[in-house]
Amino acid sequence: MTAPIAAIILAAGKGTRMKSDTHKVLHPLAGRPMLLHLIDSAAALDPARTIVVVGAGREQVEAAVHPYGAETVHQAEQRGTGHAVRMAEAALAGFDGDVLILYGDVPLVPTATMKRMLDRLHGDGEPALVVLGFRPAEPGAYGRVIANPDGSLVKIVEFKDASELERAETLCNSGLMAARARDLFALLGQVTDDNAAGEYYLTDVVGLAVSSGRLAAVIEAAADEVEGVNSRGELAALEVSWQQARRARAMADGATLIAPETVWFAWDTRLGRDVLIEPNVVFGPGVDVADRVTIHAFSHIEGAQIASGAVVGPYARLRPGTVLGEDAKVGNFVETKKAVLGKGAKANHLTYLGDAEVGAGANIGAGTITCNYDGFFKYRTNIGEGAFIGSNSALVAPVTIGKDATVAAGSVVTRDVEPGALALGRARQEARPGWGTRFREAMAARKRGEKPE
Amino acid sequence: MTAPIAAIILAAGKGTRMKSDTHKVLHPLAGRPMLLHLIDSAAALDPARTIVVVGAGREQVEAAVHPYGAETVHQAEQRGTGHAVRMAEAALAGFDGDVLILYGDVPLVPTATMKRMLDRLHGDGEPALVVLGFRPAEPGAYGRVIANPDGSLVKIVEFKDASELERAETLCNSGLMAARARDLFALLGQVTDDNAAGEYYLTDVVGLAVSSGRLAAVIEAAADEVEGVNSRGELAALEVSWQQARRARAMADGATLIAPETVWFAWDTRLGRDVLIEPNVVFGPGVDVADRVTIHAFSHIEGAQIASGAVVGPYARLRPGTVLGEDAKVGNFVETKKAVLGKGAKANHLTYLGDAEVGAGANIGAGTITCNYDGFFKYRTNIGEGAFIGSNSALVAPVTIGKDATVAAGSVVTRDVEPGALALGRARQEARPGWGTRFREAMAARKRGEKPE
Amino acid sequence: MTAPIAAIILAAGKGTRMKSDTHKVLHPLAGRPMLLHLIDSAAALDPARTIVVVGAGREQVEAAVHPYGAETVHQAEQRGTGHAVRMAEAALAGFDGDVLILYGDVPLVPTATMKRMLDRLHGDGEPALVVLGFRPAEPGAYGRVIANPDGSLVKIVEFKDASELERAETLCNSGLMAARARDLFALLGQVTDDNAAGEYYLTDVVGLAVSSGRLAAVIEAAADEVEGVNSRGELAALEVSWQQARRARAMADGATLIAPETVWFAWDTRLGRDVLIEPNVVFGPGVDVADRVTIHAFSHIEGAQIASGAVVGPYARLRPGTVLGEDAKVGNFVETKKAVLGKGAKANHLTYLGDAEVGAGANIGAGTITCNYDGFFKYRTNIGEGAFIGSNSALVAPVTIGKDATVAAGSVVTRDVEPGALALGRARQEARPGWGTRFREAMAARKRGEKPE
Repeated sequence: MTAPIAAIILAAGKGTRMKSDTHKVLHPLAGRPMLLHLIDSAAALDPARTIVVVGAGREQVEAAVHPYGAETVHQAEQRGTGHAVRMAEAALAGFDGDVLILYGDVPLVPTATMKRMLDRLHGDGEPALVVLGFRPAEPGAYGRVIANPDGSLVKIVEFKDASELERAETLCNSGLMAARARDLFALLGQVTDDNAAGEYYLTDVVGLAVSSGRLAAVIEAAADEVEGVNSRGELAALEVSWQQARRARAMADGATLIAPETVWFAWDTRLGRDVLIEPNVVFGPGVDVADRVTIHAFSHIEGAQIASGAVVGPYARLRPGTVLGEDAKVGNFVETKKAVLGKGAKANHLTYLGDAEVGAGANIGAGTITCNYDGFFKYRTNIGEGAFIGSNSALVAPVTIGKDATVAAGSVVTRDVEPGALALGRARQEARPGWGTRFREAMAARKRGEKPE
Repeated sequence: MTAPIAAIILAAGKGTRMKSDTHKVLHPLAGRPMLLHLIDSAAALDPARTIVVVGAGREQVEAAVHPYGAETVHQAEQRGTGHAVRMAEAALAGFDGDVLILYGDVPLVPTATMKRMLDRLHGDGEPALVVLGFRPAEPGAYGRVIANPDGSLVKIVEFKDASELERAETLCNSGLMAARARDLFALLGQVTDDNAAGEYYLTDVVGLAVSSGRLAAVIEAAADEVEGVNSRGELAALEVSWQQARRARAMADGATLIAPETVWFAWDTRLGRDVLIEPNVVFGPGVDVADRVTIHAFSHIEGAQIASGAVVGPYARLRPGTVLGEDAKVGNFVETKKAVLGKGAKANHLTYLGDAEVGAGANIGAGTITCNYDGFFKYRTNIGEGAFIGSNSALVAPVTIGKDATVAAGSVVTRDVEPGALALGRARQEARPGWGTRFREAMAARKRGEKPE
Repeated sequence: MTAPIAAIILAAGKGTRMKSDTHKVLHPLAGRPMLLHLIDSAAALDPARTIVVVGAGREQVEAAVHPYGAETVHQAEQRGTGHAVRMAEAALAGFDGDVLILYGDVPLVPTATMKRMLDRLHGDGEPALVVLGFRPAEPGAYGRVIANPDGSLVKIVEFKDASELERAETLCNSGLMAARARDLFALLGQVTDDNAAGEYYLTDVVGLAVSSGRLAAVIEAAADEVEGVNSRGELAALEVSWQQARRARAMADGATLIAPETVWFAWDTRLGRDVLIEPNVVFGPGVDVADRVTIHAFSHIEGAQIASGAVVGPYARLRPGTVLGEDAKVGNFVETKKAVLGKGAKANHLTYLGDAEVGAGANIGAGTITCNYDGFFKYRTNIGEGAFIGSNSALVAPVTIGKDATVAAGSVVTRDVEPGALALGRARQEARPGWGTRFREAMAARKRGEKPE
């Protein structure tokens, strides 16, 4: 008996104040374009249709949302919010359900709040429209929502048109709205551009509904749920809010953050229990951290799975495709990329592991480099269980180091090493007695400006 | 004439809200378990006895405190704070002195405040009990301390039992208490579990003392001195307070912190004068920094002694056992562990020095690795004064490089090098003219999908 | 018709509370000594003379300011601010213009505010003196400015001498002043040291002017413009203000700062549009960043030019003399110094490039080290366009790698490589079957304490 839902997301505005070649709604928040946060939250309502109204920079927006099943309609001219919503009318021909109007630059509206709007639409008095209001810390120039105590709307008044009494109202208009499709487009058809700006305002449907005797209702959201982004400063502020909430949740769920304000999560970071995170850790997207993992300071992690008991950092950089087994260790100044480390494997210092598989219990010495690239193609390195790679070795892929094999320190390994064997690829040491002393004397003389004899 | 002191520290509570396998009181603050901060502060009073009441997770707590000379008594069932304190009664049989009741999860009570409590116990009117009150920013549901203007207690009332008038009182009960042992246990013997929770409340001794005509006194502590930890969020907040105070002290003592809020000290960090610390530096325990040391950004330092004029970082990781001599330099992406560097010695880039001694004035080239581990044992590297280790060398320990010796760049050194000698351990360079060009052409063709001829 | 300007900057005070061997006014703010910030702001007024009054630590101050064209005069004894200003009188003999009195420890007074003071001096009523007032959040013990509603001064009263009514005044005296030279020194000649401290107070000129029937005017500055520094804590607080303002400007100008509070700019950092800066980036002086550059987390950059589209970090350390061409990449754990990278050149991992030129499109493999130093002199490395340097190579400078040449992984290159050639400088790999297995067994036995057979 639930009505089908169509989400209309306005994203045609250019976002001039961002001073960017990237469309405003595609600037990332917690590692993900703002608009996708919103599409995701709407998706949890299982909408029949998700329609993004695009305009300036439409190619960018279309490329971003089409993979997520959202449709786009084009608003060629920017003639106001009412006009923007009407762009979706043709696409929704024959759609007989509820419409939720959202804004691509108001990205963090929770699903629960969207649902409350729709529930209200089918609640007491069956309102024609539901408006989402909020009470900002500083109401400033926001449009004011004038409502009766029962939540029925009297009107929405723009700040510049508001009386002193109306300006004293603290309930402001977020712009978000829910309505039945048939009501919405019928009302929009009556909106005119007969105003100073010559634009069609979505807000005008409220007055039209009320004056035709229909009920328009308002419900209230927390101010931070409807925070909008018009500049990079506002984006940074919203990022702070998001991160603070995420950090609090991480701690409540059983992770220790020694300095929470220095840990940056991505939208999809997953953390186990008794995870310890030292100061200054950055998570990119796609990270899954199991229980009892320690992440030391100054680590940078993206696209990585980290099994329980593993120890990461400090100064570890785990790139996409990294999988750390139980109790594995990746230490300082180590980079991994498409690298799978088995249980208890260790790469503790100054190492690059790219396109590599490292068996359980293997030990990768300091300064080891997998040479995975020849300038054109990438190749894989396989290191067997229990193998010991001596420090400062270069493993020239494609290459396989067998189980329990040893690579001598400083070797260049270009051919496979048999299990249990030792591979040596280094020159014999020679000595030139007295050379160091003579060299020092000659150089010191040169520094003093003396001619060599 | 001073009475002997027994500190009873309650640490039986599980700390469920921490969601941790580690006991709450063992979670570290400034790099040290909370409980040890408290034991340390109490130890400054030179107590005859320090008794920790353990319960859930007792093995963890016992293992942590026994090395510090604290005793433990076991509270098998959790039947309230009064019951917990009584667990120490048998252990204190025959003890005729003062008892100070502390809480393992209220870790930052200063020694001076503890002393004030004991002083009050022997002050005007010789009170039977001294309660420590505080005025939190938000009194919320804390128990209220109802006292006369002269500091004599009327009663302590739980928030839920308090009248509107009593709730308006801002002086709250911290739970900390001082009493003579004989009074304390006599009063505790009268406490019953006749309440909704069926628990023995320590607080009840106040009412019992007052109703028997004894004086109970209250003194006041600053709210941040008695802040408690029940969740990881609260632990992080207490860490922030601790760090802020420590940073302010560092600056007042003559260190420059460019971005104080990004420097994390450990409980025992020592800093000289005219030390410069750039943004983002993490100190683990056991660090001693002399005068005129510069610590560049992104450094991570634990268990290290740094002599005057030394320069560390950026991105230096000094691990335990590091000793830097005067004017020594450890630069970017360098890790040291059990490494002693003499006066003016330098390891500026991409180096691992483990189990090593580096003489005064020696220069360790970029990319040098001490190969100190064979998978089973660790071995030492000795580098003489004035030695020059060419870049990208591997020094395979155990090995000694003599005074003023030179190691050629890219060498693998497996045998000792005489003083003043040159060691070479690298292959001769060969050339294959045109190979690079042919390789590029072949690979480019393969990338285009062409078959090789 | 504009009068010539002389700026007198008081910098004789020792700054005891800094607890430093460095003179207070030379402590850096945003990477530049405080005093130079002020000299710079004054310089924008094109002053005929800039005179710094020095005293304690004069050699340090003189060495710092003389290169900037400022003169110094010596105040041998510290006998008050009035006395300090008089030290400049002889140097200004014959100077017939305006004097601006500034303080070396009040470093962030904007040029515009200085100009407003001078404009007022030549404005309505032609005042003899212009005092700069401000309204601090907490007026505390500041001297109060008692003025008429038209901005004409009645007097400046020290806090300790102020009546209750005067203390209620929130306009405080910053100490900054503008006056015609002839008026200033005439008035200063009448100031006595007849006060408890036995000092000559500059402030006394106000009373002298007013009592002789001259007009003294006050204008107001924002409190943060006249913030002073007396301790390292106050210096850190001023740094925070400076950084916050700079970050806001960066974002307004079109850079994305994901975590603005973790980015530290230097006084002269320049940023293009659509620059993305991840958390924890430190800019030292002399950095110029073009459009569309990405700077990943944990990067440390000084003295570097970065062309458009370049990608830096994470964990990149660019030192002075680094020039990155368009779309060049410098990745994790890479240090560059006097290194010029051509268009699209890449050094992605664990590399040191010092005194090097890298041609367009060249690829520097992981772990590559330019061996630029022999302990006495530095030498250059030239890498041609399109060259490919295999991983873990050591390039021993002076050396040239030709265009499109290849260096095999793990090579030590000591001689030039022809264009299009392959250079190999590594040992052939040998195998010792079973050695690894035997070694493991022997070591494991030793660990168990068994004697080797």
